[in-house]
Amino acid sequence: MNQHRVRQGVESSVRVLARQYSNTQCFTPVAICLRGFFRLTLIPMSKKPIFIYDTTLRDGSQGEGVSFSLNDKLQIALRLAETGIDFIEGGYPLSNEKDEAFFKQIREHDLGGSQICAFGMTRRRSMKAQDDPGMKALVAAKSPGITVVGKTWDFHATEVLGVSLEENLAMIGESVEFLAENAHVIYDAEHFFDGFRANPEYAIKTLRAAAAGGAKVMALCDTNGGSLPEQIAAITTKAMEGLQDYPGVSFGIHCHNDGELAVANSLAAVDVGVTQVQGTINGIGERCGNADLISVIGNLGLKKEGYSVLGGEGLSHLTELSRFVYETANLQWRNGQAFVGQSAFAHKGGMHVHAINKASKTYEHIDPSLVGNERRILVSELSGRSNIIAVADKHSIQDDKEVQSKILAEVVRLENQGFQFENAGGSFDLLIKRVVGSFTPHFSPLKYRVVAGETSADERDVYSEAILKIRIGDQDVFNAAEGHGPVNALDTALREVLLPFYPQLRDMHLVDYKVRVVDNGAGTAAGTRVNIESGDKEETWGTIGVSDNIIEASFQALLDSVEYKLHKDNVTPAT
Amino acid sequence: MNQHRVRQGVESSVRVLARQYSNTQCFTPVAICLRGFFRLTLIPMSKKPIFIYDTTLRDGSQGEGVSFSLNDKLQIALRLAETGIDFIEGGYPLSNEKDEAFFKQIREHDLGGSQICAFGMTRRRSMKAQDDPGMKALVAAKSPGITVVGKTWDFHATEVLGVSLEENLAMIGESVEFLAENAHVIYDAEHFFDGFRANPEYAIKTLRAAAAGGAKVMALCDTNGGSLPEQIAAITTKAMEGLQDYPGVSFGIHCHNDGELAVANSLAAVDVGVTQVQGTINGIGERCGNADLISVIGNLGLKKEGYSVLGGEGLSHLTELSRFVYETANLQWRNGQAFVGQSAFAHKGGMHVHAINKASKTYEHIDPSLVGNERRILVSELSGRSNIIAVADKHSIQDDKEVQSKILAEVVRLENQGFQFENAGGSFDLLIKRVVGSFTPHFSPLKYRVVAGETSADERDVYSEAILKIRIGDQDVFNAAEGHGPVNALDTALREVLLPFYPQLRDMHLVDYKVRVVDNGAGTAAGTRVNIESGDKEETWGTIGVSDNIIEASFQALLDSVEYKLHKDNVTPAT
Repeated sequence: MNQHRVRQGVESSVRVLARQYSNTQCFTPVAICLRGFFRLTLIPMSKKPIFIYDTTLRDGSQGEGVSFSLNDKLQIALRLAETGIDFIEGGYPLSNEKDEAFFKQIREHDLGGSQICAFGMTRRRSMKAQDDPGMKALVAAKSPGITVVGKTWDFHATEVLGVSLEENLAMIGESVEFLAENAHVIYDAEHFFDGFRANPEYAIKTLRAAAAGGAKVMALCDTNGGSLPEQIAAITTKAMEGLQDYPGVSFGIHCHNDGELAVANSLAAVDVGVTQVQGTINGIGERCGNADLISVIGNLGLKKEGYSVLGGEGLSHLTELSRFVYETANLQWRNGQAFVGQSAFAHKGGMHVHAINKASKTYEHIDPSLVGNERRILVSELSGRSNIIAVADKHSIQDDKEVQSKILAEVVRLENQGFQFENAGGSFDLLIKRVVGSFTPHFSPLKYRVVAGETSADERDVYSEAILKIRIGDQDVFNAAEGHGPVNALDTALREVLLPFYPQLRDMHLVDYKVRVVDNGAGTAAGTRVNIESGDKEETWGTIGVSDNIIEASFQALLDSVEYKLHKDNVTPAT
Repeated sequence: MNQHRVRQGVESSVRVLARQYSNTQCFTPVAICLRGFFRLTLIPMSKKPIFIYDTTLRDGSQGEGVSFSLNDKLQIALRLAETGIDFIEGGYPLSNEKDEAFFKQIREHDLGGSQICAFGMTRRRSMKAQDDPGMKALVAAKSPGITVVGKTWDFHATEVLGVSLEENLAMIGESVEFLAENAHVIYDAEHFFDGFRANPEYAIKTLRAAAAGGAKVMALCDTNGGSLPEQIAAITTKAMEGLQDYPGVSFGIHCHNDGELAVANSLAAVDVGVTQVQGTINGIGERCGNADLISVIGNLGLKKEGYSVLGGEGLSHLTELSRFVYETANLQWRNGQAFVGQSAFAHKGGMHVHAINKASKTYEHIDPSLVGNERRILVSELSGRSNIIAVADKHSIQDDKEVQSKILAEVVRLENQGFQFENAGGSFDLLIKRVVGSFTPHFSPLKYRVVAGETSADERDVYSEAILKIRIGDQDVFNAAEGHGPVNALDTALREVLLPFYPQLRDMHLVDYKVRVVDNGAGTAAGTRVNIESGDKEETWGTIGVSDNIIEASFQALLDSVEYKLHKDNVTPAT
């Protein structure tokens, strides 16, 4: 192992940890030598450290709809390192040039105490390890860690690979032995739990082959994701018993979520002595995904007693990390995701909101700020007055039950048309103002038209234009604009018309634009709900429009976003 | 309890079960008397029945973005009954007229062996149960079951409700006693696990008050969703010990998913003797949702030994039930959902696809058909040749490596532009045909234009028009159409032009239309990905379009959907 790199790792660990713990008194930095890695960590004497192994960039990228560019991978690796993730599996260097380039470029970055691992399979049959292209690619990745996966299940060796049980053991042992000369080797025992159930004796032999070859960690994989917590605990215990004569070997767990038990299974393995948990951020991965490390870290760090993860401090970055990975993978957030979801601390039921206003522990299992998340109070027909009051207290209607009833009735009426105000705080604010009578329009749309088309089939000459007429004070203003798509053209035309009257709009920009088909059954004639998020230097706000016509729905949301901005800045309407 | 209704229930149970089991030999129908309900069920002698209690219509409707109409609620209740769910909580009759109407109308339907429950809270303080409006509404619902929730946690009673600990016990006992005269009472012990941790003695007293009042089931609620499986098991055991002198009382479990452990927690409670599991379909519900009954049923029915659920037969309807609830609630499917997700048996990694082709158990924990789901092979840059071959074998290119490489290169090129072929099998099929050279266009678009606008601000007079010119054989055809929104207008104009040439298109219809913004950062100028699902009498197929302009992206997907139809029907291009 490259001594210079090890020293660099220790030095950067010291910097990162010293920064993290400069304000705490109850921890002392301790340099420990962890199975070949020098690593500095700070843990209370009473807590057992559990090491987090992230495979978002390898197993996560197998998820449906997931596709990372090289830059995506580098950015995610850096973010994982910042959060304090112990091991970062970067990819499968043999599989494609992108992964090969990743290992080269990541070496240029300071990853603090985090260690990069390259992933690959055991050598092919009837070939020396040093001649195998996969083995060579793993060594060429020059990562401090190498994770090599081998077959546990006798059926997989004989039926899928087509090798004898003896040859499979040789493939495992020789591959690990060759790689262990170059790096810290983690052995991923594929299908360990299914394999153990089918042939326990052979399953243990495969681990022993890896241990004899010099692997430092046995990561037991529930590859098909169908095991139950009690099975994980019992079989992991048997595996540990089978390797008692290798005291330097520790154990890891790698779960998939096909039974919605990946997190519970990971925790069950930790309870019987596993010290490394493998998984992905947000649980992305093939089929039902991997164990979600967000939940694993949340439960180990905040709920279960006796364990420490990420040195404690990294937990408050979990929400930010989760959303960064969703955005980079271009996946939709899962609102109901444990710990970090947008709805994880959102309260809708009136009774709950009433109680939360008295004491947060009434309906929150943890303080949302511990994981970097925040509380939200939602507006809906079910919510009753408590929610209306919680959201609307800035309108001074806390005590006006008649106005509250009118607002509630208007919310119900619009919800029946397909509106949802949960992500449209700007439109809800304007709704209250309209009911209360404090809404003063800054302009009135008179008519608009958008035109979009393609003038020539050969050239893909696509164009979009918008034309509109707006009354501002006593003037009727007419304007037209081109844009990237019809909604952008409409937005541009509207801004150009309003700017001379309301220069404040220069600060405002669009943050996000989302389209949802409200009635999936009706094809292109279905209703559409458009949500627009806008922002200025101070805040962001959501607005909504609903119509059969996507252009009309977008226009409604655009109008609300501008009116919200002008109202919040207390701009006097032009006359 | 109304004897006529009980008899009706038994009779319809017999009908449903006789139908379900007419082909099985190893089960015998047995009429059992379950805590006041007559219920007919068929279970192997060795298996313990676990009763499934669904609260999708009550607790599920508290989820963010969830809003059910009266008709939605009735349709879901009927579907739950068809699947064999034991208890269906219909709503909170006091809270709104919709729920009140639900209980009236559901009585007109045959629910087989399923029992409807109404939900409410214990009586208000300083009031007789029979005078309380909530109690009256529960009785007026005339459902065979009533579920009443009370406070377990001393802090909640004194600080949130503002009542003494003694008054809280009286509220529980008197409410249950009053309701038990009218129905089978299930007592929901809110915050049971947090309450027990805070004050175990008082928590047990609240259960004993409910048992003394005549409640038949103690449903222990992990209301804040933050408990761990070992805590659930230990505290549930304590609760059972505390009620040993009430042998007629059984136990239920009601978990929330704030730690991503709701399913594991429910199973842990079953392992210590709980016989009723409460939850929602797809786990919808406030914050991170409730225990997902799909996963609870899947694990109890297919993975854990010694239990029976839904009499066995209902499991193959789980996928259909899950999707029906998503569609009715107008929520997006969760692709990675355990057991029933679209990706739950989808294979992307080339190595996995290779193995799956040899034996399905290699990467599938169960046969997907057991839960009504199916296997899918995905196309992506990571997939390698195995996936291309699996999808493309009908194109006879299994052995042509050069063509396979060309296809892979084209997929990668388009994925970089924002295309994803995973849900666009129709467009992928055309892509292969284009590479192979077997694509023969049936028409060529020459130009198009859509116009959408509003002619008058007062009247909301929204219109959409499309104009297009298409070359079919040697004719150039020009057409225009109006529509609900610009895409619908374009679709209509295209069909009108093509129908005289290709009458087969009469069978084709649009099933779904979805819009995804590819780059969230750029507001309305962002790229859009449009997925269209089309169908005829035989099958459905997905197509895709990507562009800055939503109209252009939609047009691409429309064109592909028509070409796919004409190719699959082997229609000769017009000349």
